[in-house]
Amino acid sequence: MKNACERFGYESYDASVLEPAELYRGKTSEEIVAEQTYTFTDRGDREVTLRPEMTPTIARMVAAKRRELTFPLRWYTIANVFRYERPQRGRLREHWQLNADIFGVEGVEAEVEIISLAHQIMLDLGANESDFEIRVNDRRLLNGVFKDCSLTEEEERVIMRLLDKRHDMADFDEKLSDAVGPERANKLKGGLSSAASSAHLEELLSLLYKLGITNVHVDMSIVRGFDYYTGTVFEVFDTSPDNNRSLFGGGRYDNLLQMFGEDAIPAVGFGMGDVTAHDFLEAHGLLPRYVPATELMICVMEKEHIAHALRLAQDLRREDVAVAVNFSGKKIGDQVKQANKLGIPFIVAVGDKERDSGHFTLKHLPTGNEFILPAENIPAHMLSALG
Amino acid sequence: MKNACERFGYESYDASVLEPAELYRGKTSEEIVAEQTYTFTDRGDREVTLRPEMTPTIARMVAAKRRELTFPLRWYTIANVFRYERPQRGRLREHWQLNADIFGVEGVEAEVEIISLAHQIMLDLGANESDFEIRVNDRRLLNGVFKDCSLTEEEERVIMRLLDKRHDMADFDEKLSDAVGPERANKLKGGLSSAASSAHLEELLSLLYKLGITNVHVDMSIVRGFDYYTGTVFEVFDTSPDNNRSLFGGGRYDNLLQMFGEDAIPAVGFGMGDVTAHDFLEAHGLLPRYVPATELMICVMEKEHIAHALRLAQDLRREDVAVAVNFSGKKIGDQVKQANKLGIPFIVAVGDKERDSGHFTLKHLPTGNEFILPAENIPAHMLSALG
Repeated sequence: MKNACERFGYESYDASVLEPAELYRGKTSEEIVAEQTYTFTDRGDREVTLRPEMTPTIARMVAAKRRELTFPLRWYTIANVFRYERPQRGRLREHWQLNADIFGVEGVEAEVEIISLAHQIMLDLGANESDFEIRVNDRRLLNGVFKDCSLTEEEERVIMRLLDKRHDMADFDEKLSDAVGPERANKLKGGLSSAASSAHLEELLSLLYKLGITNVHVDMSIVRGFDYYTGTVFEVFDTSPDNNRSLFGGGRYDNLLQMFGEDAIPAVGFGMGDVTAHDFLEAHGLLPRYVPATELMICVMEKEHIAHALRLAQDLRREDVAVAVNFSGKKIGDQVKQANKLGIPFIVAVGDKERDSGHFTLKHLPTGNEFILPAENIPAHMLSALG
Repeated sequence: MKNACERFGYESYDASVLEPAELYRGKTSEEIVAEQTYTFTDRGDREVTLRPEMTPTIARMVAAKRRELTFPLRWYTIANVFRYERPQRGRLREHWQLNADIFGVEGVEAEVEIISLAHQIMLDLGANESDFEIRVNDRRLLNGVFKDCSLTEEEERVIMRLLDKRHDMADFDEKLSDAVGPERANKLKGGLSSAASSAHLEELLSLLYKLGITNVHVDMSIVRGFDYYTGTVFEVFDTSPDNNRSLFGGGRYDNLLQMFGEDAIPAVGFGMGDVTAHDFLEAHGLLPRYVPATELMICVMEKEHIAHALRLAQDLRREDVAVAVNFSGKKIGDQVKQANKLGIPFIVAVGDKERDSGHFTLKHLPTGNEFILPAENIPAHMLSALG
């Protein structure tokens, strides 16, 4: 995720996990603020919240420094966020979330870039285009249709929620009809289906197609849960029948900075959580194998060889080899078992013979290949043994 | 820090910032728990604390999984920790801290390794051995001297605090005498100075010397603030007259896991904060220059060239170049100014000429050098221009 963001020109930022509780009131989903935050009063009598999402934080930061910053501004972070809700599939009380946002671009190129970045991250994770699809919508189209159907604010809210759950719902038509009556329900469905061919969304899709991004289409049921979106919204769905759910999403929020008493700055961004990413990778057999950072274990024959082992380790570390010295005092066979269990690919033993000869036996555990070498040749042989 | 830890065979771990408040009671400094934590009751009626340090967390984790883990176990993390105290030089309410710990080693080689790692990190940060010094002590020696002088528990606590502040104190002798009377004060000073030549500390220093670590010496005033240390303790001091203070430290805590109802596991570790590290680097002129992740800005002549610019960006990103496309719509000269301000080293412009010819002018801003090339040669030329 980090590498993909940086290839797209995004710079990393960071912020405290604690924010004034005030930051979320009226800016994010009311359900989250009232029922799902960790909010408390600190020793200085301030009401503080463990951030439930990053967007209000970055909006606050950009608003505070807008005169010093250069636009378009591209920032990303991989940050932990907190929600007090029942832990369930795809949701934990704390999880880590990539957030990438571009500020200062009114045109559709901002959406193109953000969706391209999301698409690229999926490819970098090992997915094919057929493993996922990107569904886009535009809040302004929804608002237009709502207006044509003369909905009350309360009805709009109910319908937004119905649309958001549409893909998990067998009785969507019935529920819609219950909410606004059969006549307006029909008008609404007609309006949504003709709005789907808007010029704005067509331009977006056409630019994405030119970049070879073809698993994207318009879906008028995409609304996103946050109140601050003002235009394009999108969600990335897993196409696997075993995990057919929304993975993550984002959209345009041009007015959020106004809430900090600043002029509006156009903004588009998305957030992608580690838990849903993990579930996606698992469902598609793409979870990477665990590989330890440690590349070489030095096995120590007897306690008296520790000083020699430490010096050898020091020499190898200067050549950028990641070396653990085995201080366990166990028999050599057990030390090798430990290296295998830990997944460390190379071992070298240090005893009388090695001290006297200055030559070591480097063993590559996965293949069993052995090389007898002076210490200074170990780093190069490790590289070549790994091919 | 990450690289040094991994060269020493340490694997990264992570944990939630929220811990049960109970975790800190009786295990860490009483002052911190009672006066300096962010502690609150969550929606599930649990008393939770934003971790003020990492050692109780790692001890909890290791205790829970000790049967599955392989020892010696080497773990590190770079984690944020929280203390509600007056912000001051070297201290903030939230800061990031490297923690590295080795579990399962009784012998002095664990202290040798942990101190070597701390020393290596200082060198990797750009310090010379003369820029800092490592002061070591042993809690067991202190306890022996205290016992010989028949101190009460309360007197021990007062003297530990006096020793901890000794280097900032002009009237240490006087205060010591006030606390325990002149006779025992003299006995105490004598005891401390003869204890300093213990066999254990001498073995530690001798092994460190063999590894070329010579800026280390015994200092009986080093006590460390936490109650859980059981043996060797050490602190790294800045030798600069402008910043002559303790930078960080650690020590041996063999009994902490017993508090989780488990058998004791020997453990040695240290924590190093980002704020003191920053102050050290600043005092020694070692702060690194900010370099953005972005390597190339594509300047866009006219709106109609955006699709072309996006495709060029996509091609370059596939070659691992970090590319930002300038969507500002500003004049080309202003776009170049933006690249300069952001510290992005290369620019390339996209307009009619480039689209028609397929050749681009790559400019290296720091030198002004220009290269006219087809797109596919840009990545290699960027590498060679950077030398």
